Amino acid sequence: MKRTERVGAIIKLLTDTPNKLYSLQYFCDRFGAAKSSISEDIRISDAAVRAAGGGYIETISGAGGGVRFVADITPEQLQILQEEFCSRIRDSRRILGGGFLYTSDIMFDTHLINRLSAVFAKKFKDRGADYIATVETKGIPLASMVSRQLNLPLVIIRREAKFSEGSTVSINYFSGSYDRVQKMSISKRAVKPGSKAVIIDDFMRGGGSTKGIADILSEFDVSVVGTGVAIAGVLPEKKKIEDYTAIVFLGEVDEEKKSIEVFPNRQIF
Amino acid sequence: MKRTERVGAIIKLLTDTPNKLYSLQYFCDRFGAAKSSISEDIRISDAAVRAAGGGYIETISGAGGGVRFVADITPEQLQILQEEFCSRIRDSRRILGGGFLYTSDIMFDTHLINRLSAVFAKKFKDRGADYIATVETKGIPLASMVSRQLNLPLVIIRREAKFSEGSTVSINYFSGSYDRVQKMSISKRAVKPGSKAVIIDDFMRGGGSTKGIADILSEFDVSVVGTGVAIAGVLPEKKKIEDYTAIVFLGEVDEEKKSIEVFPNRQIF
Repeated sequence: MKRTERVGAIIKLLTDTPNKLYSLQYFCDRFGAAKSSISEDIRISDAAVRAAGGGYIETISGAGGGVRFVADITPEQLQILQEEFCSRIRDSRRILGGGFLYTSDIMFDTHLINRLSAVFAKKFKDRGADYIATVETKGIPLASMVSRQLNLPLVIIRREAKFSEGSTVSINYFSGSYDRVQKMSISKRAVKPGSKAVIIDDFMRGGGSTKGIADILSEFDVSVVGTGVAIAGVLPEKKKIEDYTAIVFLGEVDEEKKSIEVFPNRQIF
Repeated sequence: MKRTERVGAIIKLLTDTPNKLYSLQYFCDRFGAAKSSISEDIRISDAAVRAAGGGYIETISGAGGGVRFVADITPEQLQILQEEFCSRIRDSRRILGGGFLYTSDIMFDTHLINRLSAVFAKKFKDRGADYIATVETKGIPLASMVSRQLNLPLVIIRREAKFSEGSTVSINYFSGSYDRVQKMSISKRAVKPGSKAVIIDDFMRGGGSTKGIADILSEFDVSVVGTGVAIAGVLPEKKKIEDYTAIVFLGEVDEEKKSIEVFPNRQIF
């Protein structure tokens, strides 16, 4: 196999499984090449991936080391993505009343969601998280993509305890968006005490739901080391959680004027 | 930029967005190269991707043509994947009683689920589907990955009508697994009349839930052109839907002997 093909194959293998570590020996065996050749292949692969955008190949030296693909986003790509995301949201036909917007088509556009997931992967990659946690339903595709980018198990908190989840723990919490008490339930098998989680969700208004996730995780002594939401409402200014990262902010939704105010978060990184 | 780097960058761009068509001109402009060079790059990219496994690069000629990455799985890769999947399921600690198994950790392992998604992408890519449809919750990560592989919007059918879904249509159906009437709800905005959907779910026993999805879609004149489930129960032999593709079959779950019978579907393709 020629170098060009080998580099292409290495890129395919690494980017298919983001954040998964491969030893150089794995590629030596797979392609029947010397370690010095594979090292040079990796160097070229990294340059190629950076040229394409969306990440880089990281080499971790020492015993237990290896190479892996790390999802990333440049400031320019982030700005393009945020503008595209805002313009998708800004369509007045989304207005449902009560300040609610129909956003399922956006949140279930998996090519777009995959690009958004790189933002959170970059933001939270060094937090030492053991899981990506979300609550059903609309944030699950986004949380799934972040889980794949960071190679971390996904934990989905349910609204109702399900038999197929085994023993569960449930909590009640107050949702400001829906102005009522809501329930969350988590399987005892889903998390280990003392572990760490990053919370990912599609939308945050007052933060009640996000705080609910943190509360139910704390029942298992799981600490939250990061919270990412695709869209956060500007109001209420005082959220129930302090530390979160939104990709864009949703301002005033005017039903009469049919206008939606939405703008990028310029302070993600 | 040298050929080796250009090939690597093309592979990264194409595999990041499966099934999305790029014109050759896009790469000419992006890398400042002649069409003849890019054509040769594409040929090498295809060979490299095939060597890595997991898909190929397809060239569609004529006006409106271009190149795209198509997810694929070889018979050998499929067998390895099915055996790995079976051995994950075959752990007796999963037994919950009543023939139920705890499988959330598997269904939320997004690297594994991404590999499973290639099976359905290959199976259903030529069905002319407009959507990937699933019902919340456990099949959503898998359906999300299939949606990404086929570059098709995801439609998530809810258990309860939600305000954020706008106007919805609901149906009741009988679930054999839960031995009770269940509800499904879909947003009127989610699908277009006369379109086609592939249904993806994590598990099928009698097929009640899958038939429920088909029924609610038919309310919108949406036809089902394929059904894929990660795990299908061997029993009941007579399902409520006839045509479906399972990756593995679940046989007897013996609570006393703590044994789980699970085996690969050898007739997927």
